[in-house]
Amino acid sequence: MNEQIIQNYLSETIESFRSYKKLAEKAMAQVTGEEFFRAIDAEANSIAVIVKHIAGNLHSRWTDFLTTDGEKPDRNRDSEFIAESDTRESVLEFWEAGWKILFDSLESLKIEDLGKTVKIRGEDYTVVKAINRSLAHAASHIGQIMFLAKHFRVADWKTLSIPKNKSAEFNLDLAEKQKVETEKLSRFEVPPESSGQANSGE
Amino acid sequence: MNEQIIQNYLSETIESFRSYKKLAEKAMAQVTGEEFFRAIDAEANSIAVIVKHIAGNLHSRWTDFLTTDGEKPDRNRDSEFIAESDTRESVLEFWEAGWKILFDSLESLKIEDLGKTVKIRGEDYTVVKAINRSLAHAASHIGQIMFLAKHFRVADWKTLSIPKNKSAEFNLDLAEKQKVETEKLSRFEVPPESSGQANSGE
Repeated sequence: MNEQIIQNYLSETIESFRSYKKLAEKAMAQVTGEEFFRAIDAEANSIAVIVKHIAGNLHSRWTDFLTTDGEKPDRNRDSEFIAESDTRESVLEFWEAGWKILFDSLESLKIEDLGKTVKIRGEDYTVVKAINRSLAHAASHIGQIMFLAKHFRVADWKTLSIPKNKSAEFNLDLAEKQKVETEKLSRFEVPPESSGQANSGE
Repeated sequence: MNEQIIQNYLSETIESFRSYKKLAEKAMAQVTGEEFFRAIDAEANSIAVIVKHIAGNLHSRWTDFLTTDGEKPDRNRDSEFIAESDTRESVLEFWEAGWKILFDSLESLKIEDLGKTVKIRGEDYTVVKAINRSLAHAASHIGQIMFLAKHFRVADWKTLSIPKNKSAEFNLDLAEKQKVETEKLSRFEVPPESSGQANSGE
């Protein structure tokens, strides 16, 4: 039973990372090239910079996760906050590569690894704490990407959540959809896609 | 060993929630009353609205967490996106109350509860998935609060992370601090506070 809970924690966490990655990508897909690099004040991070920072963090924390310090000596954190010589393509390549390192690492973890300890900037972290911290960190910055993309697109923004003043309608539609699906599907089939949308309609 | 991992997961998660709550509060403390309610475009959520939404979500999800659907029939989600008749005090009271429900509920969970299933809008969620989803949701909106507060305060913003172009310096300072602490503390004492700052210097 306990082993099942831990196995479940690991697969749920991987799923959460995937759904936040997807939310960020759906938000980014809506902005123009200029908006991708636009900062709303002299100190604010652009979407490009936030993407570089998330990716730089993932590279550093998840390369050789169990065996080396999560803050790599060759990480240039300050450079993540500058995107002047980057293209949208180079930023998104770095993003993909960072997530690949995360997923490869998470997917190779065994249950017994969850009881181990890793180091981040010389401090001890349980593996569970390092995972939690990484998910919350990514989610907090992806929230910013979504906020900025929506701000730039205002009128023609395609919502990634429940539209304003549509919560009651959404709940009714969902109840109806679930009724139909319950009639259609046996309990061993795939659940409706909505359960995978971590940030949708919270 | 497995029981230890699950116990550890629960306490780490509570700690992560606490540190994101604190980050939000440190950010909010820096804005004026006008900025607290300011929306940067006609569709954008103000800090007040984001706070109401996080709190409304926590109330709904964490009241009678194990025994009732996480989307409560009396939740008025749409009203969370309007703050016209609220004061800063009323919004922060709602915020505190929401977090209290979360912490009371999380702290009362037993290890065997982590193997149970709960419902959100009629869909089944493992307890672990519901917890992960709640943490990531709160973190994503708290990232937005921090982004907005920093935007409003630009020049006199007191950073909650590592200042720009100070990453290398921060790592050196930390290494020095850890050296001194290792000399001072036995391994059974409390670790330096920095390990509790979930979003600081990622």
